Amino acid sequence: MKTDVQIAQESTMKPIKDVAGKVGIPESALELYGNYKAKVSLDLLKQKQNEPDGKLILVTAINPTAAGEGKTTVNVGLSMGLNKIGKRAFTALREPSLGPCFGVKGGAAGGGHAQVVPMEDINLHFTGDIHAVTTANNLLAALIDNHIHQGNRLGIDPKRVSWRRAVDMNDRALRNIVVGLGNKGDGVVREDGFDISVASEVMAILCLAMDIRGLKERLSKMVIGYTYENKPVTAGQLDAVGSMALLLKDAIMPNLVQTLENTPAFIHGGPFANIAHGCNSVVATKTALKFGEYVVTEAGFGADLGAEKFFDIKCRYAGLEPSAAVIVATIKALKKHGGVGKNDLGTENLEALKIGFENLKRHVENVGKFGVPAVVAINEFPTDTQAEVELLDKMCREIGVPVVLTQVWAKGGDGAVELAKKVVELAEGGTSKFKPLYELNQPIVKKIETVAKEIYRADAVEFSNKALKAIKKHEEDGLGDLAICMAKTQYSFSDDPSLIGAPEGFKITINDVKVSAGAGFLIPMAGDIMRMPGLPKVPAANNIDILEDGEIIGLF
Amino acid sequence: MKTDVQIAQESTMKPIKDVAGKVGIPESALELYGNYKAKVSLDLLKQKQNEPDGKLILVTAINPTAAGEGKTTVNVGLSMGLNKIGKRAFTALREPSLGPCFGVKGGAAGGGHAQVVPMEDINLHFTGDIHAVTTANNLLAALIDNHIHQGNRLGIDPKRVSWRRAVDMNDRALRNIVVGLGNKGDGVVREDGFDISVASEVMAILCLAMDIRGLKERLSKMVIGYTYENKPVTAGQLDAVGSMALLLKDAIMPNLVQTLENTPAFIHGGPFANIAHGCNSVVATKTALKFGEYVVTEAGFGADLGAEKFFDIKCRYAGLEPSAAVIVATIKALKKHGGVGKNDLGTENLEALKIGFENLKRHVENVGKFGVPAVVAINEFPTDTQAEVELLDKMCREIGVPVVLTQVWAKGGDGAVELAKKVVELAEGGTSKFKPLYELNQPIVKKIETVAKEIYRADAVEFSNKALKAIKKHEEDGLGDLAICMAKTQYSFSDDPSLIGAPEGFKITINDVKVSAGAGFLIPMAGDIMRMPGLPKVPAANNIDILEDGEIIGLF
Repeated sequence: MKTDVQIAQESTMKPIKDVAGKVGIPESALELYGNYKAKVSLDLLKQKQNEPDGKLILVTAINPTAAGEGKTTVNVGLSMGLNKIGKRAFTALREPSLGPCFGVKGGAAGGGHAQVVPMEDINLHFTGDIHAVTTANNLLAALIDNHIHQGNRLGIDPKRVSWRRAVDMNDRALRNIVVGLGNKGDGVVREDGFDISVASEVMAILCLAMDIRGLKERLSKMVIGYTYENKPVTAGQLDAVGSMALLLKDAIMPNLVQTLENTPAFIHGGPFANIAHGCNSVVATKTALKFGEYVVTEAGFGADLGAEKFFDIKCRYAGLEPSAAVIVATIKALKKHGGVGKNDLGTENLEALKIGFENLKRHVENVGKFGVPAVVAINEFPTDTQAEVELLDKMCREIGVPVVLTQVWAKGGDGAVELAKKVVELAEGGTSKFKPLYELNQPIVKKIETVAKEIYRADAVEFSNKALKAIKKHEEDGLGDLAICMAKTQYSFSDDPSLIGAPEGFKITINDVKVSAGAGFLIPMAGDIMRMPGLPKVPAANNIDILEDGEIIGLF
Repeated sequence: MKTDVQIAQESTMKPIKDVAGKVGIPESALELYGNYKAKVSLDLLKQKQNEPDGKLILVTAINPTAAGEGKTTVNVGLSMGLNKIGKRAFTALREPSLGPCFGVKGGAAGGGHAQVVPMEDINLHFTGDIHAVTTANNLLAALIDNHIHQGNRLGIDPKRVSWRRAVDMNDRALRNIVVGLGNKGDGVVREDGFDISVASEVMAILCLAMDIRGLKERLSKMVIGYTYENKPVTAGQLDAVGSMALLLKDAIMPNLVQTLENTPAFIHGGPFANIAHGCNSVVATKTALKFGEYVVTEAGFGADLGAEKFFDIKCRYAGLEPSAAVIVATIKALKKHGGVGKNDLGTENLEALKIGFENLKRHVENVGKFGVPAVVAINEFPTDTQAEVELLDKMCREIGVPVVLTQVWAKGGDGAVELAKKVVELAEGGTSKFKPLYELNQPIVKKIETVAKEIYRADAVEFSNKALKAIKKHEEDGLGDLAICMAKTQYSFSDDPSLIGAPEGFKITINDVKVSAGAGFLIPMAGDIMRMPGLPKVPAANNIDILEDGEIIGLF
């Protein structure tokens, strides 16, 4: 069987200016990065602001399992399938961080015959967006410590600086550090730490800002810590915003690449899906909607986190109206949710499939709560049995959700033609009546409870004293009206990763509530959330190489 | 008077493919980054390896002063002046770090009518080379800490890890840190620190490697620390080299841009000039030599550090044969070396000029020790008086060095036509008989003493016990045959920055000798050398902005 990288290298890319030209994006709006990558001017979106949008399709999934679901692959495949049936479609995805690339083997640009290319560029430095985010994040950090060191005019309490440094690397040793050691000239000693760059609020903001002005407005609101008098200190007060925006002036322009079938693909922005909202940039999605009849986009993790944040944060703030949602599942993964061990997933097990289906069913119901019609896409595996497929089909029909088999890994767009037809049927049926789950002006506690009860199906939410204190403080600081961005394990509806399937009778515990005032959300912390991954015992980096002729080994 | 950025924005850039085409670099060898920046394929150099080189001209200077000398400006101006007199010339410079950009106001791409453009891109992320260096540096750091955390097969002593992390930012708080705090899974506690990225050995290597193979060879030799048994541990032993090289695959390709007069300019690589060798990349210089009749390049700081390292490290390792050197001075700066205070530099002072001339004289003599003919370029200022110019001219003639006035800031290439003619006369006279100052196979102490006595004119070199121990260890480890890369203040021939002019009767004290085995040099530490600058009380970052129409404020 061919590897992803082999399939990718055998494909024929078209010059990106031709890919753009075919959907009406003029060459003058492109800034080329080689022949196959381009940044697209933000002016284009401005010029087209009064023209109608295409239809926005969300690809989401059941709670992820070790079996793998293939959400990105379906996303890419669906956009190619839509092209096959004559629709002008775009893919819009997040851009991958370097950290995982060198940690656990695996690219992040689809797979098999449903990939975005040039995959090796996309998975390495790409157009430098994440480096720009890292740099802007760390400029602010340097300005904060320098401010304190140089007299601390604002009275920032070094013990209450919440802004952390960033590096685009899996580096556990940087999670908890002490900075400012040494001599008098070497700054002020305090505890600090690094997050992986995609966990930075700057990345979340880059993905929500509409233009340079909006970017600066959001950056200026970022809370970096508190004064000795317990007042929030913002990036705006530190005069950091102009420089940060300058560092991000190219990063905010969406990146255009293509699928293996030359479908235009925006790969732009990549915020974490737990402590941030996990969606690609608003500017990429909006630009695609101006030039595509269909734009297929995904959100991180399962629908409990990804879809909810896509709807309640991205769509709400950007004024987007999604037309339909695709919920991806595999029979293997559903059996996993039904309690089957990793080694037995290849064996037919209808009973486990039935139990695991409850996970899918709940996500289907949840998407319905946002008023968006859904279709289930079963990403087919060779081990799926006829009986399993039929049972799943029957169970989906019983709850009234359409279900389609896809073979995008093996067949590319051809493997998603049926899915594309069903998506078009839903989207053009005009049944979508999108609405967010909660109102922003509700109390923070109420908003958190709504998500936990309506989406996760928790019986109750328990708030720690720390969380209650934080909520009170945020409301006092005038930050009560922000959206909710839940930081919770992706593996379960609950806050316990071992409670797979469709758990009931559990409580969600909120330990703390952090704030990303620039991004526009409060982050209730339901458990320990990793903001800086570590490397495994044998990192992928140890087996990666580049040969003299440029051949890349071991990256995927 | 117009600012640098105004002059730059009023200039008309040519598409970079036209600039390249005019000197014979085919479009197929370019990877475009927009219309005005391109990376040039390394294959080009390989294809041309048996063809003759153009003439290599070094631009160096007296010891820098607060008055400013304008070395880069003269470098750019001279390449334009050579074009004016019909020579196909290139500029080859280092690329600037982001740190200083946001610290102390000032770009690093020349000035006035002698600039390289697009200056705002060059001074910001450019083509991402420094970000790639940072990432490769930090991947290695993460692999080291992970290796120790995951069982420490190699027996690395956490107290003797010499590899530091990197960030392209002026951030004093990161000079001395403790990493690995927190819980069991958060790595091993040890002291660490960040250097600014351009101080990383990875940057030095990028600038000395000829191709991917050479890059990997050098990376694999980097010493990252020592085992409990006091054996050096290399990046090669950590299986880090393939991944680091992959991260650097684009960064190693030289960046082509242009001067305000459309002269082709390679801006590539930017190692520090104290703890590294301070020269742009060998691949850029060599590629330029294949397509230009003249290549004008500079080295960091004054000739005591810059020229010596250019000759003894870059030229020696790369097999380059420089044809002539230009030593830049200003009358203001010479008066500063003659003891005049900052506020009195605008007043005629022949006596001070005479005293300060001794600094220039010594550099002229020093360049001669490498067998390279020199010309003095006086970068003219409006405050220079007729009497001062005449005196300086006379003193230069007395020591037998040609001297030319330049007005490159105000007039661009026209201001360097006389200098260009003199350079051509020297270079085509064929008097250059380049030879390095010392042989590599001499003992380390001997090599250090040679530089200190021959170039700095120290009476003696004192080695601390720590330095002597380090020298012994490096020789035991088989690293005695490396070049010497002195880390010393740039402001004085001595190791005391206040001893300006041409000090005599001093000793150089070597506190330690570090090693960059991949770059190929030993670093004798003559005093405290800053590897991570700090921000001033009011950083330039506070006054930098980008407006909605894209206009950049305060960057230069």
